[in-house]
Amino acid sequence: MNYIYSDRMSKMNGSATREILKLLTRPEIISFAGGFPATQTLPQKDVQQIAYELLSRDNATKVLQYGKTEGFPELTEQLIDYVRSVNIEGMGPENVQVISGGQQGIDLMTKVFVNPGDCVLVENPTYLTAIQIFDSYQAKIIGVDADDNGLILEDLEAKIKKYKPKMLYCVPTFSNPTGKTYTVENRKKIAEITAKYGVMVLEDDPYSKLRLDGTPVPSMKSFDKAGNVVYVTSFSKVLSPGLRVGVAVGNAEVIRKIAIAKQGVDVTTSNLSLLIVATYLKRNLLSANIRNALPIYRERRDAMIAAIDKYMPEEYKYVKAEGGLFIWGEFNAPINTVELAPEAIKHDVAYIQGQVFYADGSGLNTMRLNFSNSSVERIDLGIHRLGDMFKKEIAKLKK
Amino acid sequence: MNYIYSDRMSKMNGSATREILKLLTRPEIISFAGGFPATQTLPQKDVQQIAYELLSRDNATKVLQYGKTEGFPELTEQLIDYVRSVNIEGMGPENVQVISGGQQGIDLMTKVFVNPGDCVLVENPTYLTAIQIFDSYQAKIIGVDADDNGLILEDLEAKIKKYKPKMLYCVPTFSNPTGKTYTVENRKKIAEITAKYGVMVLEDDPYSKLRLDGTPVPSMKSFDKAGNVVYVTSFSKVLSPGLRVGVAVGNAEVIRKIAIAKQGVDVTTSNLSLLIVATYLKRNLLSANIRNALPIYRERRDAMIAAIDKYMPEEYKYVKAEGGLFIWGEFNAPINTVELAPEAIKHDVAYIQGQVFYADGSGLNTMRLNFSNSSVERIDLGIHRLGDMFKKEIAKLKK
Repeated sequence: MNYIYSDRMSKMNGSATREILKLLTRPEIISFAGGFPATQTLPQKDVQQIAYELLSRDNATKVLQYGKTEGFPELTEQLIDYVRSVNIEGMGPENVQVISGGQQGIDLMTKVFVNPGDCVLVENPTYLTAIQIFDSYQAKIIGVDADDNGLILEDLEAKIKKYKPKMLYCVPTFSNPTGKTYTVENRKKIAEITAKYGVMVLEDDPYSKLRLDGTPVPSMKSFDKAGNVVYVTSFSKVLSPGLRVGVAVGNAEVIRKIAIAKQGVDVTTSNLSLLIVATYLKRNLLSANIRNALPIYRERRDAMIAAIDKYMPEEYKYVKAEGGLFIWGEFNAPINTVELAPEAIKHDVAYIQGQVFYADGSGLNTMRLNFSNSSVERIDLGIHRLGDMFKKEIAKLKK
Repeated sequence: MNYIYSDRMSKMNGSATREILKLLTRPEIISFAGGFPATQTLPQKDVQQIAYELLSRDNATKVLQYGKTEGFPELTEQLIDYVRSVNIEGMGPENVQVISGGQQGIDLMTKVFVNPGDCVLVENPTYLTAIQIFDSYQAKIIGVDADDNGLILEDLEAKIKKYKPKMLYCVPTFSNPTGKTYTVENRKKIAEITAKYGVMVLEDDPYSKLRLDGTPVPSMKSFDKAGNVVYVTSFSKVLSPGLRVGVAVGNAEVIRKIAIAKQGVDVTTSNLSLLIVATYLKRNLLSANIRNALPIYRERRDAMIAAIDKYMPEEYKYVKAEGGLFIWGEFNAPINTVELAPEAIKHDVAYIQGQVFYADGSGLNTMRLNFSNSSVERIDLGIHRLGDMFKKEIAKLKK
């Protein structure tokens, strides 16, 4: 049988990070490649207790029988309250759709709005799986330039005029991969400009609760007057990625379309996962879990920065993220991180080559390092090894 | 904001059955509309115990941390064994992909193979959500005629020649909605004909374990020599629909593409759901659960048939299904079940108008009745009410 796949599969060759993660089965490898939350932040005991209660004789039918695509009213209520923490006010049940992890929100928004050939704007660089999803819908992906304030508004407007995009995708708080946070003013202006031109915005916010320094910033959705911003967040980084629960919040008409698209994709998210999250939120356990996680992440981030300062060549320039899970950086030298990734694995260290986050395939001199899922000791050891390797490469270049 | 949706959304207006199900909140309504397993067959106690063990201190990281798109090796092993029960032999881990419910299998297969405008063949009538999924990929859906032996092979071959379809979708065992089962010979020939013309087959099998009479039939996949058949089954009807776990089995190259497509859609299925199913299978609990469920379903099916014989007008001709969850029938009279569905709701009974299962919008005189989720008493009462209503309509026609 000679299989003839759909055109949309032509650019889909498996997630680069997931493929790397599969190589990392040797326990001696120090991995800065993934985006895993620290294992000790996963609330084993509480989830065990909650699952036991949910599966008791009186409650289990609700868990085990078919549910509704919309989820459960008690979860929706909790989620309306939850997004108030990023200044999203005035939402009702009609504005909320539970999803099977934040990534399903990207997939469904694209399904609902994007035809093959339509343009999607992204920050350059951006979350690589988002790029892969837009590719799977055969979108034309165009990068918008960014600086320390967020997207460069002139570039955004010029590209809207030129490409007439259907959607802008961005991660305004602790951007993946760069760790940067858009300013309040930048968010307001992005909401205004996109509304003016009728461009949908998908605000992806998996990380804002993981703030290690500085002051919280309102979500871009909180500045949305036209109803063109859909806010997506996830419980993967703050509770458990294995449960696969997230939420999309937006205009009721758009949320209705997302629900219809979800009906065709997986009918409902696992009831057990949804009700675990609902109960966890209702018992006010989440903020305590985050509170306990932050010192761990702060210590690890600081250890990574200290190790970079100590071991990496001076040509390596990084962003000191105020939160999230990653340290992003680039070499002021023609270092090719794609070519060197297998070499790093030989030294038992893994990073993600920054190129995968660029829609245009640039960024050969960039690298994303994850600090959340390694101990301080292993961070020091891993960055030491990387530093030695890169210093050698720099030395070769100088010859 | 004037929302401009993608072209693929134009035919997606929400699942007809799901919308009906949402109307059925009044407990006095007797619903023959859904496809819910009987609530007493949901193994509350076992799932509660298994979840508790999985979430113990020693195991919980595996559940709560990120998993792999491929799932867990211990589940894959169980699934390879599980599909042997429908004569699928010689499968390895590379032939198996876990999915978030059987429906995700339909969605992913379509994503992998079908371009907008491509033809998908279906049995006429067929599972309505499959039609909706094919619509969401802008496929051209063509119905193949069927009789008591299965698909009419001449019609299948003629339509393959005429429409050059990418895929044939069918439910060969206790077909949804008709309850019919294709003969062994019919399965063999379908596998042969589709292989000859290079047409993929999606064999959807949610019901074969729910056999109430007669002899089990090997899956169509078991007759697949060319590697063009992908077999999809689900644990929704035999364990729990709320967990959202199914499996796709096929050629390794195709399964790899399905895995890549799944990475972009939801990354992984809920680890907790996957590991509950793995443990449930490993402990040999499934066959006992099915064994206990069958007498309940047999009693309900027989009660429904007895009630139909007693109360329905003689113009109503039905299929006595040997298994599954549904009784399908049609009126040898110009009865319009679409128009009468709201009238039935007024009498506190719900059915599904058969039209929704026809890709071409025909079948106005047909009706699907679910027997699995109502007690014998309510089945008798509900069919009595329906019978009275339809008899009145028939009398009007005869005036």
